[in-house]
Amino acid sequence: MGLVDHNFNLPFNIIRCSHVECGVTDLDASRKFYVDILGLIETERTKDTIYLRGLEEKNHHCYILKQHDKAEVFALGFKVAFDKDLDALEQHFKQLNLPAQWVNKHAEERTLAVRTPMGIPVEFHAKQTRVPTMMRAYSKYKGLAPLRFDHINCFTPNCQSTYEFFVSQLGFRLTEYTLTDRGDMWAAWTHRKGNVHDMALTNGKGPRLHHTGIWTASINNIIHLLDVMASEGYVENIERGPGRHGISNAFFLYILDPDGHRIEPFTCDYLTVDPDWEPLAWDLKDPRRQTLWGAPAPKSWFEHGTPFHGTKVRESDIVSQPIIAGYEDVA
Amino acid sequence: MGLVDHNFNLPFNIIRCSHVECGVTDLDASRKFYVDILGLIETERTKDTIYLRGLEEKNHHCYILKQHDKAEVFALGFKVAFDKDLDALEQHFKQLNLPAQWVNKHAEERTLAVRTPMGIPVEFHAKQTRVPTMMRAYSKYKGLAPLRFDHINCFTPNCQSTYEFFVSQLGFRLTEYTLTDRGDMWAAWTHRKGNVHDMALTNGKGPRLHHTGIWTASINNIIHLLDVMASEGYVENIERGPGRHGISNAFFLYILDPDGHRIEPFTCDYLTVDPDWEPLAWDLKDPRRQTLWGAPAPKSWFEHGTPFHGTKVRESDIVSQPIIAGYEDVA
Amino acid sequence: MGLVDHNFNLPFNIIRCSHVECGVTDLDASRKFYVDILGLIETERTKDTIYLRGLEEKNHHCYILKQHDKAEVFALGFKVAFDKDLDALEQHFKQLNLPAQWVNKHAEERTLAVRTPMGIPVEFHAKQTRVPTMMRAYSKYKGLAPLRFDHINCFTPNCQSTYEFFVSQLGFRLTEYTLTDRGDMWAAWTHRKGNVHDMALTNGKGPRLHHTGIWTASINNIIHLLDVMASEGYVENIERGPGRHGISNAFFLYILDPDGHRIEPFTCDYLTVDPDWEPLAWDLKDPRRQTLWGAPAPKSWFEHGTPFHGTKVRESDIVSQPIIAGYEDVA
Amino acid sequence: MGLVDHNFNLPFNIIRCSHVECGVTDLDASRKFYVDILGLIETERTKDTIYLRGLEEKNHHCYILKQHDKAEVFALGFKVAFDKDLDALEQHFKQLNLPAQWVNKHAEERTLAVRTPMGIPVEFHAKQTRVPTMMRAYSKYKGLAPLRFDHINCFTPNCQSTYEFFVSQLGFRLTEYTLTDRGDMWAAWTHRKGNVHDMALTNGKGPRLHHTGIWTASINNIIHLLDVMASEGYVENIERGPGRHGISNAFFLYILDPDGHRIEPFTCDYLTVDPDWEPLAWDLKDPRRQTLWGAPAPKSWFEHGTPFHGTKVRESDIVSQPIIAGYEDVA
Repeated sequence: MGLVDHNFNLPFNIIRCSHVECGVTDLDASRKFYVDILGLIETERTKDTIYLRGLEEKNHHCYILKQHDKAEVFALGFKVAFDKDLDALEQHFKQLNLPAQWVNKHAEERTLAVRTPMGIPVEFHAKQTRVPTMMRAYSKYKGLAPLRFDHINCFTPNCQSTYEFFVSQLGFRLTEYTLTDRGDMWAAWTHRKGNVHDMALTNGKGPRLHHTGIWTASINNIIHLLDVMASEGYVENIERGPGRHGISNAFFLYILDPDGHRIEPFTCDYLTVDPDWEPLAWDLKDPRRQTLWGAPAPKSWFEHGTPFHGTKVRESDIVSQPIIAGYEDVA
Repeated sequence: MGLVDHNFNLPFNIIRCSHVECGVTDLDASRKFYVDILGLIETERTKDTIYLRGLEEKNHHCYILKQHDKAEVFALGFKVAFDKDLDALEQHFKQLNLPAQWVNKHAEERTLAVRTPMGIPVEFHAKQTRVPTMMRAYSKYKGLAPLRFDHINCFTPNCQSTYEFFVSQLGFRLTEYTLTDRGDMWAAWTHRKGNVHDMALTNGKGPRLHHTGIWTASINNIIHLLDVMASEGYVENIERGPGRHGISNAFFLYILDPDGHRIEPFTCDYLTVDPDWEPLAWDLKDPRRQTLWGAPAPKSWFEHGTPFHGTKVRESDIVSQPIIAGYEDVA
Repeated sequence: MGLVDHNFNLPFNIIRCSHVECGVTDLDASRKFYVDILGLIETERTKDTIYLRGLEEKNHHCYILKQHDKAEVFALGFKVAFDKDLDALEQHFKQLNLPAQWVNKHAEERTLAVRTPMGIPVEFHAKQTRVPTMMRAYSKYKGLAPLRFDHINCFTPNCQSTYEFFVSQLGFRLTEYTLTDRGDMWAAWTHRKGNVHDMALTNGKGPRLHHTGIWTASINNIIHLLDVMASEGYVENIERGPGRHGISNAFFLYILDPDGHRIEPFTCDYLTVDPDWEPLAWDLKDPRRQTLWGAPAPKSWFEHGTPFHGTKVRESDIVSQPIIAGYEDVA
Repeated sequence: MGLVDHNFNLPFNIIRCSHVECGVTDLDASRKFYVDILGLIETERTKDTIYLRGLEEKNHHCYILKQHDKAEVFALGFKVAFDKDLDALEQHFKQLNLPAQWVNKHAEERTLAVRTPMGIPVEFHAKQTRVPTMMRAYSKYKGLAPLRFDHINCFTPNCQSTYEFFVSQLGFRLTEYTLTDRGDMWAAWTHRKGNVHDMALTNGKGPRLHHTGIWTASINNIIHLLDVMASEGYVENIERGPGRHGISNAFFLYILDPDGHRIEPFTCDYLTVDPDWEPLAWDLKDPRRQTLWGAPAPKSWFEHGTPFHGTKVRESDIVSQPIIAGYEDVA
């Protein structure tokens, strides 16, 4: 099976991944982590929810942290070009016999909540409340100096079928990938906005959120975040890195929020707006794919993820795959 | 007049600015500057032409340097999504009674050469010969470690009308701008690919090329380029910077190639893929627009540009504008 | 005259320049600048004085800001190895018929106040009150993230004689210099601690303080300080740079505090502990000496300095020197 | 036992560690690693020896690579202030009944070869042949852009006694350390030149060289070296890092040359010229001492070292020490 053709003819236009809504068990502890340490801007706080955005962002939120009884993800958010794209998406999901319903979300005009065939909860919107960018308020930069939400990475028990859905049915385009020996997709990086990924998929117990990625302007900001985390009592929340991914060329770090939601502060990827950009295939046996410099990722990194609220998690369909291979492919 | 509506309904899709073709008077001197000092990759050299690309680029060229008797620009190159977009553009330009003809360009499948109403020579293509990316060949990084071609900036004698053409007729979207006291566009930054600009326009004697911009991953690369230029005898080719633009948030440098073609190595701008991204207006009297840190640009920077081959240059239509204001608005 | 021999046989050991005591006209405005913007640590504040230190420093102060009716410098501070060195210095200055008296300084055990032949007020101490280093308190890093006080630079009306005094009578060692056409010292960089300078001298109206230098770990910190200053209303306090000095190899910036005391945040010099390190001579006509990249310094930078309290200022003795040459040699 | 007093009254002045002489089994492979990858300057090559220096260095060599049948270290080199210090050292070692003899070394005027009580071969010199600095030849910067040799780190089977020798008999000063539960020195960082260390000692099978440290100006240079090593086939030579040491505050990387000689490219430590600088004690149980960010070092890093030519290696005298503690203390 492997690769499928890109679909440039869909009647809607998904612009980019925009945000994620996470259930957290201690809102104050989360605020300390996301705002004081990481450096995100708090746009608004209600009784049970905090809305955050990156320094350059002019939309209301890229993280919604909601008081909850356990660490779960409520929805992955994507922005479409125009209001009419929401209606086209509703029709599209209904034709596919997939759940699609209008929901009320704070600070979004209209929101369409759907489920992918694998059960991943996705919410589409065209407009969030506009708020001021803090990009030029340099004295507010701290921690990571996080500029913008960049991507989402999910575990899926069948990477091939989830990949096909995002590419064929939603118009995502493949940038890098690895195949199993049988020729199935083992991991895939797909995008809408023109860089390496909006949505990455990796084979594994799922569906679960593996991590969200946040863009910062420089390697030095990531090093400073590490120093700050170490000096403020967050050494245990540093999971992997810093390092360079062969895949995506990103300089990366992986950290865990107080509930175990994984975040990847990163910088340095590349432009993929060309429709004739050829996806880059990686050999499962090339360790530089994961970490260019060779350092192995910890076991937790291949096993830990955050479940989606109301979504059953199952084992990977690729049972014959040696588990060690699985240890080499999420990025 | 000022702002006009964005046009999302054109029957073609320009993906991004892709390259520029420059006439240079000494090919070896130019090669030394672009390859040995700046660090661009030489894709191919023919008897009278050198084709260059950035480290991450997989297309054949982003700079064409052609032996010529004087410093002129032959064409600005733009990439469209698909081959059919070229036909749609041909029809579009003919309907507008603007020149449009098919030309043979090395390493491009089909190329449509047009002129804007102001006389700027533009060439559209859908496919260049694909070549390997050097992004992961880190030992080849030198000078600036230039990753990709980013944008084009032109002087135009009537910024308002040129801006209107690019936005209304070609689908470019405005990100930042300044207006004159009369409410006309004084300078405009417009894009297709989702960052601050593919095509920037500034009022002045023209049409002429002001500069081309090259993206690099870090501020440190720009500092290293400065050190290399100084130690290799290119101090006179450093024109302005380094500095931070208020406009675009870019960390910039302006340098001149041996023929005076201006280049802006830069890093750090922001994402503009949202159709509802609101353009940022700057006050002509705010010096931070130009250089956030306040340092003035040299006079040459407001006066010097490279003419287009076969295109007459005329004075700016805004004669009443105090010249000093003109000195504060190109970026 | 020009160079004199280094003196390795003095009966005392000056370790390094340690601090400067400045008169400021608005203590709160100064505190905002030095602590909130620049990022120095406030060790202590009394009714009319603020004591500051760098992030890595374990001594009580490197800047003393004292409420005063005008911008003046009260003293340049140097640290000696041991208490006995203070007594040796007292004897040395008395033998030279130079003023030397014991004074009480807050947070110093014993302090010897002297005057150089040119009238520069210098204070020696062996021990300041020890305070905790903040080097590992990374979440307190802001602005420049200033690590330590590095050097002092003074205008002197006779650079040759002042240079001779510091080298022959105090044991400073020359690292870089320029001579006039007559063979006199035009500017000199001398050190005790093993890097490029503790005490730099430049010919000009004086004696006056030209600037104090503060070390930070990276170029990125200096760029961030510039962004912070620009966004917090301190554009006017940015005087020159950023740039690279040919002399010293430092990546530099020059800023002015609210009273006009000049500060040089910088990074990157080199090790000079070898007694056989040969001083580097610069040609007065080489512009890279000042700014490797060629950008001229503003006129203020050659003319503005802060007078010493109670010290008469006179014109430079080198009257025949073309003034433009003077414009090329302070660094 | 633990700490002993610093000795400021020795009749000689060791300025700094200066170089190391290593036996390598394939001179061409070593040259490729040290010159092409790491970026050191080749000062001279004879039939069986390569002499290297850092970019800022004006002395003939900081690494001597000598063709040999196995990976061994011939000598650790230290520079003294003046020629007379060599004679004082000869007398001092003879009084201590330790080996001391004059040897002929290429590019050094006089060289005194001694052995410490533990058998470490040390060579003192006052003058090497002076060669040009390449600090301002920025176009020659590549790989790490290594500026200067910084320090030496050795395994010793009895850290307390080796520490005492370097401090009491050679005048080194302690900057940071850890003690065993019995109060003995477990690891010690000592200096002469005024930064964190010239000579670090760690308990373990020895004496053996643990690593030599090379200073570079920025974190970005270390990241670039990693990228270059990965793309040029040296992934296996990357042993540990990048990371931040709690001890010394250094941003570090550990790599192995083709024969297994370990090198630490690093940047960011602090100034220690003050005689009253109080050594910093670390708790053996604080993991941040080793890696501020918590990542464990690989086992090889605690076990692998290079033996000294003609010197017997023995197990650590601290047999009661749990081996895991040993795993936490070299840095």
